[in-house]
Amino acid sequence: MIIDGKYVANNILSKLQKEIEKLSIKPKLCVILMGENPTSLSYIKQKERSAKVVGIDFELRQLSINTTEKDLIHLIHSINNDSTIHGLIVQLPLPAHINTHAIIEAINPKKDVDGFTSENIGKLFLGTANLISCTPKWVIKLLQESHVPIYGKHIVVIGKSNIVGKPLSLLLMNEGGTVTVCHKDTQDIEVFTKHADIVILAAGCPWLLKKNMVRPGVTIIDVGFTVIDGKIHGDADFEALEPFSSITPVPGGVGPMTVAMLMENTYIATTIYLSSLSE
Amino acid sequence: MIIDGKYVANNILSKLQKEIEKLSIKPKLCVILMGENPTSLSYIKQKERSAKVVGIDFELRQLSINTTEKDLIHLIHSINNDSTIHGLIVQLPLPAHINTHAIIEAINPKKDVDGFTSENIGKLFLGTANLISCTPKWVIKLLQESHVPIYGKHIVVIGKSNIVGKPLSLLLMNEGGTVTVCHKDTQDIEVFTKHADIVILAAGCPWLLKKNMVRPGVTIIDVGFTVIDGKIHGDADFEALEPFSSITPVPGGVGPMTVAMLMENTYIATTIYLSSLSE
Repeated sequence: MIIDGKYVANNILSKLQKEIEKLSIKPKLCVILMGENPTSLSYIKQKERSAKVVGIDFELRQLSINTTEKDLIHLIHSINNDSTIHGLIVQLPLPAHINTHAIIEAINPKKDVDGFTSENIGKLFLGTANLISCTPKWVIKLLQESHVPIYGKHIVVIGKSNIVGKPLSLLLMNEGGTVTVCHKDTQDIEVFTKHADIVILAAGCPWLLKKNMVRPGVTIIDVGFTVIDGKIHGDADFEALEPFSSITPVPGGVGPMTVAMLMENTYIATTIYLSSLSE
Repeated sequence: MIIDGKYVANNILSKLQKEIEKLSIKPKLCVILMGENPTSLSYIKQKERSAKVVGIDFELRQLSINTTEKDLIHLIHSINNDSTIHGLIVQLPLPAHINTHAIIEAINPKKDVDGFTSENIGKLFLGTANLISCTPKWVIKLLQESHVPIYGKHIVVIGKSNIVGKPLSLLLMNEGGTVTVCHKDTQDIEVFTKHADIVILAAGCPWLLKKNMVRPGVTIIDVGFTVIDGKIHGDADFEALEPFSSITPVPGGVGPMTVAMLMENTYIATTIYLSSLSE
């Protein structure tokens, strides 16, 4: 059975649009881009389109690839202090002369709609976050909207990156799941996947998960993204697994759908701003 | 085989003493205590004794149990700004009228030697932390000093608390371990423990881990701490497991030994302060 991420995302966006209409101000999202990387530009286009759909103002600040770290931080600080902008993201990757960690930490955590600052990660850990990074947030949402229970279930996460595997494992624990995190140094991944109720793939390794590695009826969320000969592949052997599982296709499951979570985060950041006015 | 935490801790403390002697200033640790809880006072006594051993100045600021949150935060801010104090902890638990989270966040992360602020937790997550909370830090140190490999091994952590289970799972992932976090909502814990190379117990549930739940040769680190009829119990059935495993006794394995990590953190906070002077 196919889990249709696009359908769930569209539902979320139309609910969000109604919530945004009720706000006393129009939310605004700003994206900083250094240079002209075409992949980055195409991601930003997706964000702009979704923003338009839900009623969020969108601004792209495109800087020269040679901009200094100091000037970039200066711009971030000025946006931090600009009360008309509620959400800010710096499009990654940044060029080599820029310290990515320092740039992320310069963002006001209340406007950090990517949820990448250490303050927001700390809150995610503690279960008190309101701005949660988009991909892990989307995986949880997709499971919930698809009525796949997490509580008391065994979930295997494959991949331990800072932006997917690690935050997801914490969110799943917070939801009452028993979580095993596997990665490239794990011996015998199938020992774990064979016992799993849910497998979340975030390794970037096509055809990693095969039919003989899971139980029938398993739920598979495939966050993998690898381009081979112009075609996008997830981490699952989709054709073999689909008849025996609930599974997200790649593309069409996770990738672009996380943009819906960015919109939700921008809405949340706007409500944070509005409630700060009444303090 | 017994893993002797006391021996490892004493080794660390004597190395630390030599490092502290080389510093240009004497580190100082301040502990804030509200009220007169005898258990808290006995923990503080242990901290004071260890500080003395390694050459760290120690100051206890004892406040009335009725102190307001505002006054407590005011005191924390004044200590944050006091350049003669390098490490600060607020002894937990705090009385019910105080918001513990707000108090922890008021501590300057550079002086947060308990590693509890969201900034330091975020850094632990990212693998960039220099101030790591004492119990998980100690478990990693104890495994390393006992030459128990983590990389490529399967480690089962039982318990998902914010101060032990969750941070430990992240640290173990950072070290290349495959980690399963079990907890009270996990079905069939033995499915996981039977496959584990290392089991870390942090559930607070005496005799939880029995001989038939593990493989011979497993390493068991018991962070459990339950007092029954005046006697301290860990989470392992120690007598039955000891002949078949490497195991920490309770007491004598983890509990008071984490104080050694608090001393190391105070030393690290002092070096952070010293390097800020030269910036």
